[in-house]
Amino acid sequence: MTRAQHATAPSPDASDASQAAPLSASGDAPWQELSLLTKGLPPVPGEASVHARVISARGLDLLAGDLPLPAAVLKASALEHNSRWMRAFLARHDVALAPHGKTTMSPALFHRQIADGAWGITAASVQQAAVMQAFGIRRVLIANQVVDPVAMRWCFEALRADPGFALYLLVDSLEGVARLDRIACDAASPRPLSLLVELGVPGGRTGCRTIEQALDVARAVAKAAPRLVLVGVEGYEGAVPGHDAASKEQAIRDFVAAMGELAKRCARESLFAADPVLLTAGGSAFFDLVTGLPRMLGDRRAKVLLRSGCYLTFDDGYYRQLWTRLAERTPGIAALGEPLRPALEIWSSVQSAPEPGLAILTMGKRDVSHDLDLPFPRWRVQEGSRDLQPAPASWRIDALNDQHAFLRSDADAMPRVGERIGCAISHPCTTFDKWRTVLIVDDGYTVVDAVSTWF
Amino acid sequence: MTRAQHATAPSPDASDASQAAPLSASGDAPWQELSLLTKGLPPVPGEASVHARVISARGLDLLAGDLPLPAAVLKASALEHNSRWMRAFLARHDVALAPHGKTTMSPALFHRQIADGAWGITAASVQQAAVMQAFGIRRVLIANQVVDPVAMRWCFEALRADPGFALYLLVDSLEGVARLDRIACDAASPRPLSLLVELGVPGGRTGCRTIEQALDVARAVAKAAPRLVLVGVEGYEGAVPGHDAASKEQAIRDFVAAMGELAKRCARESLFAADPVLLTAGGSAFFDLVTGLPRMLGDRRAKVLLRSGCYLTFDDGYYRQLWTRLAERTPGIAALGEPLRPALEIWSSVQSAPEPGLAILTMGKRDVSHDLDLPFPRWRVQEGSRDLQPAPASWRIDALNDQHAFLRSDADAMPRVGERIGCAISHPCTTFDKWRTVLIVDDGYTVVDAVSTWF
Repeated sequence: MTRAQHATAPSPDASDASQAAPLSASGDAPWQELSLLTKGLPPVPGEASVHARVISARGLDLLAGDLPLPAAVLKASALEHNSRWMRAFLARHDVALAPHGKTTMSPALFHRQIADGAWGITAASVQQAAVMQAFGIRRVLIANQVVDPVAMRWCFEALRADPGFALYLLVDSLEGVARLDRIACDAASPRPLSLLVELGVPGGRTGCRTIEQALDVARAVAKAAPRLVLVGVEGYEGAVPGHDAASKEQAIRDFVAAMGELAKRCARESLFAADPVLLTAGGSAFFDLVTGLPRMLGDRRAKVLLRSGCYLTFDDGYYRQLWTRLAERTPGIAALGEPLRPALEIWSSVQSAPEPGLAILTMGKRDVSHDLDLPFPRWRVQEGSRDLQPAPASWRIDALNDQHAFLRSDADAMPRVGERIGCAISHPCTTFDKWRTVLIVDDGYTVVDAVSTWF
Repeated sequence: MTRAQHATAPSPDASDASQAAPLSASGDAPWQELSLLTKGLPPVPGEASVHARVISARGLDLLAGDLPLPAAVLKASALEHNSRWMRAFLARHDVALAPHGKTTMSPALFHRQIADGAWGITAASVQQAAVMQAFGIRRVLIANQVVDPVAMRWCFEALRADPGFALYLLVDSLEGVARLDRIACDAASPRPLSLLVELGVPGGRTGCRTIEQALDVARAVAKAAPRLVLVGVEGYEGAVPGHDAASKEQAIRDFVAAMGELAKRCARESLFAADPVLLTAGGSAFFDLVTGLPRMLGDRRAKVLLRSGCYLTFDDGYYRQLWTRLAERTPGIAALGEPLRPALEIWSSVQSAPEPGLAILTMGKRDVSHDLDLPFPRWRVQEGSRDLQPAPASWRIDALNDQHAFLRSDADAMPRVGERIGCAISHPCTTFDKWRTVLIVDDGYTVVDAVSTWF
């Protein structure tokens, strides 16, 4: 392995202008065609789909009852705020961003993130990478091991079929390297597959448990050049265990230091095939800790790449809590102004108010995340009005069935049949995956755009 | 309200032959076109979709690694067994079936259920009903209240646009009736909207809490003829609370008796507009209890309609447990032979075996149900082989992340990187909704068909 191989490995420094390829001469993209049969938009007898452009022009008014509920909506003003926040963050810190696309799996939002300055998009699987490649994302990091024969073959087919496409994968075992190399030998790809060695911690998720194990994996990759090339080191600090916040934060500091040490040792052994070397961590809740990764590895330059998937949509539960701790730890965050805003809400209607203190809503487990918290009622629109009012503080959702939510409160504060209720959510990833169409609304809840998801 | 109105209400006795309308002259249906970008089938650079017919001919072999995992598979032999079981059940009992389509939201499986003798398909929402109507289901029962203006309007538009389409909705409040009637007045539909009054129980979900309340709702529907007509009584016995199995079963017996009493009183007041009167309950776990609904209401005939959504796919957790209790209660069930078989499995691969006793699989919360139980490892295929072997009894999945599962066992029984693992599931409804393409496999796990879902 020598630096002569740099010419064949994709350069992580290529211009961002190459990131968004037009998908067709007309400027239309297949992901802008939205189903009228799946959840989201009003069904129209005899019509199967509609273009996002047409939806934007229709002025559908959620508050006035123009949408069949439940509906998933993103507030345009919150998306814009969060985009601005991230651009400011990137301008002040020497880090690059490959936001985790698994959160939304929405090509329209991927392109927005590229416009926010993202270096590329992160995927969790070959299926997700294939969506990104098909829809014009030019740099994809699969932040997982790829082990299925057909999935490994896709990686080499994509490199061959799409010369402008850069793809990065993780490895955390000698078996993983050997499996990829067997497929690489068969594929006879004109370009190498770029790999990052994954470091983990005992009691964590994936990743080598020690620097020595990771070095062995890195050496095996280097030996498989020019079919496979080592381009960086990866770790997911979010999976580092800790019995409380303080011990977790210390464990993450140690983990980040170990990632730097591993990268320096790989550099010392000339195992890396491209400059700059990629050093990538999750970063969603620990921006401050992972930006401590080194920028130089001996005489080799490093690019620090964060994968924060939830900055664009944020939430009003899990991520908001993590953010509060982040802001306490990192006074510099305040310099970026107003924190991220929760953009994603699920709206439903009261279909039944069958006994005092109980209302049954038209949403359930299949419409809203429930793995970390149940949804939080935030807004009401009383029947016969289109006035948005804050939900009474006593309202709580205490159970979800597949298609129903149980809202309880004091009997005198209950909503009536037909009222529309807006809920904030905790955990955008497990809300997005319940929707094929997500609506974008202005502050008056008129639909201004709609995006498709590809899970 | 008199029987003269029967001519305008759809007859629940029309021939079943009208249930499956061809969607196009070629015999092709839009729901047979399967995405190559969403989860399920192997991605192919440059290709967006493929017809189910083509997939059937490709001989994709899950055990040999032809599929990118995770994948959701239905065993063809289990589907066939469960179809036969249901045909035998219907032949022995004087009941009709409108299986709840929310479980699968798969038009191909809806048509299979119609072929099994189903009277129609049940939906949970107008969106689901719209999928069914668009894809040729001729009788749809929305087992929910419909309250959104745009959703109510769709009901009348569908009745107008599709004269052969029969649609049934629930009501459980005077407000609900008034809302529907306001839309009905505007719609000036050539056909009435058919409603069933919903009975519930205190502490339950939707539905009137007393027979008197339900009678008031039924009378309000009858007064809104010919725009709205009352055609039956509905209840969902699964939502009847009980502090243990025995008390729940007694409460269900009482509830079923109350449904019968409500129906008789509606008949006595001549509130029903069509013969036979529909009496419908869920039935999935309580076939035996709900088949006790009356077949005569004074001089009016009644049709008892079950909505068991999970008979076709069944499961290996929640429904299997309910079934065990059902079989204990009902010796006659044994006469139908072998019980229902779990048809649905989720397969994933070992992507990492990072420390003794831990393997990380390529599936997570977004791929498999986790609301009632975590998935159960049942099968393994060791690397370099395609031999299906039972999973060691010590294997257990004890955590899911969004895209990862944690499989733990004794260190000496662990799978290696690249092994394929088949898991049984608990709760098909919250597994189906995580997949847009579900594969149908033979007993050797070769793909013989694939179906799309429309959530």
